[in-house]
Amino acid sequence: MQKFGGTSVGTVERIRNVAKRCLAAQRAGNDVVVIVSAMSGETNRLLALAHEVTKIPDAREMDVIASTGEQVTAALTALAIQEEGGKARSFLGHQVKILTDGSFAKARIKTIDGAKIFDALKQGKIAVVAGFQGVDENGDITTLGRGGSDTSAVAVAAALGAGACEIYTDVDGVYTTDPNMCKAAKKIDRISYDEMLELASLGAKVLQLRSVEIAMKHGVPVHVRSSFSDVEGTWVVKEDKDLESIVVRGVAYDKGDARVHIDGVEDAPDSMARLFGALAERNISVDMIVQTAAAAASSTGKRADVTFTLPKTDLARAKPFIEEIGKSLGATGARYKEDIAKVSIVGLGMRSHSGVAAKMFRILADKNVHIQAISTSEIKVSCIIPLADTEAAVNALHEGFGLG
Amino acid sequence: MQKFGGTSVGTVERIRNVAKRCLAAQRAGNDVVVIVSAMSGETNRLLALAHEVTKIPDAREMDVIASTGEQVTAALTALAIQEEGGKARSFLGHQVKILTDGSFAKARIKTIDGAKIFDALKQGKIAVVAGFQGVDENGDITTLGRGGSDTSAVAVAAALGAGACEIYTDVDGVYTTDPNMCKAAKKIDRISYDEMLELASLGAKVLQLRSVEIAMKHGVPVHVRSSFSDVEGTWVVKEDKDLESIVVRGVAYDKGDARVHIDGVEDAPDSMARLFGALAERNISVDMIVQTAAAAASSTGKRADVTFTLPKTDLARAKPFIEEIGKSLGATGARYKEDIAKVSIVGLGMRSHSGVAAKMFRILADKNVHIQAISTSEIKVSCIIPLADTEAAVNALHEGFGLG
Repeated sequence: MQKFGGTSVGTVERIRNVAKRCLAAQRAGNDVVVIVSAMSGETNRLLALAHEVTKIPDAREMDVIASTGEQVTAALTALAIQEEGGKARSFLGHQVKILTDGSFAKARIKTIDGAKIFDALKQGKIAVVAGFQGVDENGDITTLGRGGSDTSAVAVAAALGAGACEIYTDVDGVYTTDPNMCKAAKKIDRISYDEMLELASLGAKVLQLRSVEIAMKHGVPVHVRSSFSDVEGTWVVKEDKDLESIVVRGVAYDKGDARVHIDGVEDAPDSMARLFGALAERNISVDMIVQTAAAAASSTGKRADVTFTLPKTDLARAKPFIEEIGKSLGATGARYKEDIAKVSIVGLGMRSHSGVAAKMFRILADKNVHIQAISTSEIKVSCIIPLADTEAAVNALHEGFGLG
Repeated sequence: MQKFGGTSVGTVERIRNVAKRCLAAQRAGNDVVVIVSAMSGETNRLLALAHEVTKIPDAREMDVIASTGEQVTAALTALAIQEEGGKARSFLGHQVKILTDGSFAKARIKTIDGAKIFDALKQGKIAVVAGFQGVDENGDITTLGRGGSDTSAVAVAAALGAGACEIYTDVDGVYTTDPNMCKAAKKIDRISYDEMLELASLGAKVLQLRSVEIAMKHGVPVHVRSSFSDVEGTWVVKEDKDLESIVVRGVAYDKGDARVHIDGVEDAPDSMARLFGALAERNISVDMIVQTAAAAASSTGKRADVTFTLPKTDLARAKPFIEEIGKSLGATGARYKEDIAKVSIVGLGMRSHSGVAAKMFRILADKNVHIQAISTSEIKVSCIIPLADTEAAVNALHEGFGLG
């Protein structure tokens, strides 16, 4: 099972290389299934075309358009394999078939019927599956969201019982942090599903979050590697003793969020439920939430301050609701801050090591980085810091936790 | 039922116009189904991409690629209708579904299930169907050949029992002859299926031949008209008294054929069957065939000369077979001529009028055009003439039969 991303199939020449790689794997005795993305730039071209027609395109029709990118690459890849003397057959989402729910643009895979792929493999063919796409129960085309081809690959690998899922991309693996931000970043050889999940959700863009969830659920080993070299990449696998011994596996950052601070909310039992329920209803996904119960009680009862983050792109849309609900909760005001970043450390070893968070705060304090909010889970600590301090913070944490 | 060709949906602006036209038809009280082609140039771009990968692309994979052109236009058109305030839904070949045989690149429609389209219409939606494509019994995507969207349109119209099928194109109807060749050419208001079939097969490119066959079989009135104006175009309809009274409806020409002449073939009962059977086996479609039994009997028995035409593009491939079979039939030689053209006159009235062919030969003779071969059917006469005389011949026939 191999999956190639957009840059790996960005030109006809690169598609030829993909074909050669598939044939080499087949010659080595493997049944080969390959999942391909759209040629790089193609999805954006198609979406731009749709946006030229209408500003708020219907999601169903957008998926019909967007899915053609992978459709073309799948057939071109099959042709390239044939041109190299191999046998190949392309499969679209509705042909495999990859059944999803009906949430256009962000569909979730429900089941995959591998029968046609098995047939093709039995005939000595390489099965080329269009990534990113599926079909719902009405036969409507759906897509899985940006990076969805990763998810297609892992899900097909799980459905076929493949020994591993190789994700070929334009980087040679998962790094301890973003090499563009920190020169000392190193490739990670092995990482657990849990750590990868945290890193992906905290800003590392190498794998789609959902693909890691599926890999974990079905125990599919995922190998993230470069399509431009033969070097081993990063294996994403079940946790074991070895992996647990590392306290911090990587440092992630995310510049995409804005911070909202609401002062003096009534400390009623359902205040938070009303506030965040209202945002969730409007499909605004809130990330970190920090609530501080105010020490002083005012005449109208106890009051609390609440801080949370949400995607910058949702801020304009969210403001009116926040003001409205804030008012109904008796808030004295709301403040917004866009020049923030979230830096996080992730590692399985945190479970059994104490003082990791304290060490993180100390490292940031030593660099004069002001921490504006903190959130933790079993295997990660995240801090909201000023945007301008991102690079310094990432580098200091990377060095401080011995990742260099 | 409306169908828009490639130039009619060539830009986002034009797709908007298509949307407006559909909505106007709906407001006028019609259930509207629209069939769209790929944006002009798109199919060629896709085929070029495939040819970059391999010189002889697998037909199945080519259809997967080529069908994306119509897929994108269908969704864009649905979006444009929505943007104008209407309701619309796109349908691909596998969604309608349009079931074809498995002949990739030239599939023939077997059945069309209109249920989903009727559902959409019942909900007040305009159904936008991707032309040119279908799906075979294995769920593989097929295409119907160049101009196949015409056939999609007529077939869907027949399946839905539509009152008429409007084919919007870049010309404003069917002409008495090619206006580029003859300034006196006039738009035909009404033409019978039979005449249209003959004109289409004799070189007029306005409608795909297969679409006329289906329209005739199911009695669907077809209206060929311009997408850039509101002028009435040409109605292709069942023949009636009015139509029969016209002796010659139009003049067609075709520069795509080459002439083959084989001398001294044995006049055995199966000679022709062997010759043309061998060519048919190799998928070379022969058009006009003229056989002249030689008057003089040689020592080896009676001999005949045979002349036929075939597409110039097939000539190089056909030559070796022709030489080989010719030899086995005792032929004394074969000659080839590429600088020829076929001019034809077509009209229902020929059935009841005698002397039409003789008049044609007289008109050509008066212009010193040398006729090299003749073939006739009930409603047409075709002559092979020198390529250089095409324009003069077309103009003389157009004037001579009073079409100007």
